[in-house]
Amino acid sequence: MTTATDETHDPELKSWVDSANAEGTDFPIQNLPYGAFRRRGSGEPIRIGVAIGDQVLDLRLASGRTAWPDDVASLLTLLAEGDLNAFMALGPQARVTVRRALSAALAQGSAHEAQLAGCLVPQTDAAMNLPCRIGDYSDFYISVHHATTIGKQFRPDNPLLPNYKWVPIGYHGRASSIQVSGQAFYRPTGQIKAPDAAAPTLAPSRRLDYELEMGIVIGSANAQGEPVPMEHAEDHIFGLTLFNDWSARDIQGWEYQPLGPFLSKNFASTLSPWLVTMEALAPFRRGFSRPADDPQPLPYLDSPQNREGGAVDVELEVWIQTEAMRQAGHAGDLLSTSNLADAYWSVAQLVAHHTVNGCNLNPGDLLGTGTLSGPQPDQAASLMELTSNGKRPVKLSNGEERGFLEDGDTIILKGYCQRSGLRRIGFGECRGTVLPARGDRAA
Amino acid sequence: MTTATDETHDPELKSWVDSANAEGTDFPIQNLPYGAFRRRGSGEPIRIGVAIGDQVLDLRLASGRTAWPDDVASLLTLLAEGDLNAFMALGPQARVTVRRALSAALAQGSAHEAQLAGCLVPQTDAAMNLPCRIGDYSDFYISVHHATTIGKQFRPDNPLLPNYKWVPIGYHGRASSIQVSGQAFYRPTGQIKAPDAAAPTLAPSRRLDYELEMGIVIGSANAQGEPVPMEHAEDHIFGLTLFNDWSARDIQGWEYQPLGPFLSKNFASTLSPWLVTMEALAPFRRGFSRPADDPQPLPYLDSPQNREGGAVDVELEVWIQTEAMRQAGHAGDLLSTSNLADAYWSVAQLVAHHTVNGCNLNPGDLLGTGTLSGPQPDQAASLMELTSNGKRPVKLSNGEERGFLEDGDTIILKGYCQRSGLRRIGFGECRGTVLPARGDRAA
Repeated sequence: MTTATDETHDPELKSWVDSANAEGTDFPIQNLPYGAFRRRGSGEPIRIGVAIGDQVLDLRLASGRTAWPDDVASLLTLLAEGDLNAFMALGPQARVTVRRALSAALAQGSAHEAQLAGCLVPQTDAAMNLPCRIGDYSDFYISVHHATTIGKQFRPDNPLLPNYKWVPIGYHGRASSIQVSGQAFYRPTGQIKAPDAAAPTLAPSRRLDYELEMGIVIGSANAQGEPVPMEHAEDHIFGLTLFNDWSARDIQGWEYQPLGPFLSKNFASTLSPWLVTMEALAPFRRGFSRPADDPQPLPYLDSPQNREGGAVDVELEVWIQTEAMRQAGHAGDLLSTSNLADAYWSVAQLVAHHTVNGCNLNPGDLLGTGTLSGPQPDQAASLMELTSNGKRPVKLSNGEERGFLEDGDTIILKGYCQRSGLRRIGFGECRGTVLPARGDRAA
Repeated sequence: MTTATDETHDPELKSWVDSANAEGTDFPIQNLPYGAFRRRGSGEPIRIGVAIGDQVLDLRLASGRTAWPDDVASLLTLLAEGDLNAFMALGPQARVTVRRALSAALAQGSAHEAQLAGCLVPQTDAAMNLPCRIGDYSDFYISVHHATTIGKQFRPDNPLLPNYKWVPIGYHGRASSIQVSGQAFYRPTGQIKAPDAAAPTLAPSRRLDYELEMGIVIGSANAQGEPVPMEHAEDHIFGLTLFNDWSARDIQGWEYQPLGPFLSKNFASTLSPWLVTMEALAPFRRGFSRPADDPQPLPYLDSPQNREGGAVDVELEVWIQTEAMRQAGHAGDLLSTSNLADAYWSVAQLVAHHTVNGCNLNPGDLLGTGTLSGPQPDQAASLMELTSNGKRPVKLSNGEERGFLEDGDTIILKGYCQRSGLRRIGFGECRGTVLPARGDRAA
């Protein structure tokens, strides 16, 4: 577990990139998240960059432009090839080495300023890609509040199943349809069966929803057959992102028994472009515990470090911008807020559980947290919860109402860490837009 | 749908590779399946090969050794790079071109014999790899017999759920832990809860099972948002393989609600090394229908071609070789037989369903059929079915009994197509062995 802080976390540290010192930026010099991009409109190869203020430091350029110490130079040479997965595979020490070097090089007074100034690309000129190749994607269910509320709707008599407080419930998801923030997707079509209908029909989903999640991105691999114990679990995590697991509730309700959700989820998911490293998150850790009356975790899911600092304190927000808002130049309404630290299972517990049977995780693999609803009703992290399955639509500031998502709606997830005496760091945005169902679908 | 036959299917066609003409070989010249390998013990790059008799034609060598027509030469140059996925992406026409060329070149009397004889590697000298990179793996549930029998055990009051005859039920699986035939895996450890216990414990699975499945391997991709209609569904299938979806029933029973199986499946799966193409299977198609009293498929899952020839007639076998049998030099016992054509959903229906919501399939993606149990009790394709959940163990020929798998057990899946007036073709073997649980597991 990376809770150690060092000079890279110093809240007084400022960058020669002025925008990184601005109040409220997601990307001060204390953050330094990784992404993949090319210059907008160019056909250049994908390159790895680090966000700093409103700029991206292009590591392909930065690798060759100035003199780096040998250990840093070899890592930057690897990163310059544009393949983040190869760097992720190296584990935490490589990240720490690069973080310290970039922090020093981007700090006010650095001798590298003249050379590196030419390696900056304005974020507005960067077309972001998915940050890494996602091999396998697994999704969890770590909010007990979400599990209880959703459970009531699917199984009124039996909302929280007996395994919930013992097993970090998870299932496999679809990697191929994960898109980077900023893209749009067609409203999915699928089998839907009204409760009183004799047969299902194929139709566009009428109950399209978002799910506010975070993504846990794997760094170094474990070999097949080799479980990762709790005390080493976070060594296998590269960092965290925002993640929207779009869900078609009407398709889900009909298809999900007995093997779980499938087409109700795999038409699209949206990932934020910046991977915030575990090192950047180190100052924002909290003790992790559960109510004394609850069953305590089995030994393979427990460790002193996890109890002391297993939670990550990330404030989360869901915003909606409807088509009407967009046309009126309105940035959107806040739908709800939440916090990763309110989850029932920690990120380390997810890695330990996922591998206890010998399952191998690879660099770039994505673990979704599941919908991160908080304990309060206004912390519901999906419309299904926020509107009681569409029955109590939310009223938007322009007079519109939403039970579920309409065509043209954009959902924007945001996240940040802030704590007294520390510089606030953010995750950027995870933004996706619903397009109308394809007209040429088979009927 | 590829049901057209041509000169490559001629049962009289013989090869200058003598072993391809032997009675009972899986790999006569009418088959020509693709695999990936390196010479055993060599560190050479992975290369693509085509099985012929007891040999592999090394396409890296074959590409340069003789004069090929231009269209064939460019495809063989691609294959010579060792990346089957790039070839798979090209779709059926590329396969037909190479099939015809290799069939002619390997036929008795071919002018290429002298050059190609040096490109053969005995299969006993070839260390097989997974045939392609598997991006996403989805598993279906297409045997109504399996769904009913298993359903009775998990839900005695409600074995076949109301969606079964409408929805080709599927869910996502784990790609990273899929191994090629011939490997072994550790018995998985996981949370297990006895019905009368107050709490689960972490322990090695005591109810480890196999599942006889076939794998449907995707060739050309569909773009995200673009459903594949039934009439084009098989154009996106490269071929079929044998697949064993090992399952820990005790872990599954405790974890699977509400989101489906996870750690009970993702510790290991085993794939046979040879991809038998849809072209090789063309003569072994059958009409596909369901009982008249059953709901008929929705229009997006129906087509005249599917009704006329949607089924693939593959005879399947499950064999067991225990440690005691191995020590006695005994090749194993036949546990059960089955046939892919008895499934409730066709391979085309799986592709059409998987993409109807816009989900994108990529070259190398794997669709498992689910356990292919047949209508008769002795056609049960897992021990859970064959032994009534362990209660009625099967008696083996050496006096041993099995309720579930023991350490040291090897399961061998076999498959073949045969029909009067045609040359029999086979799938080779899908073989995997259970090792004892790791002693160093967290307790």
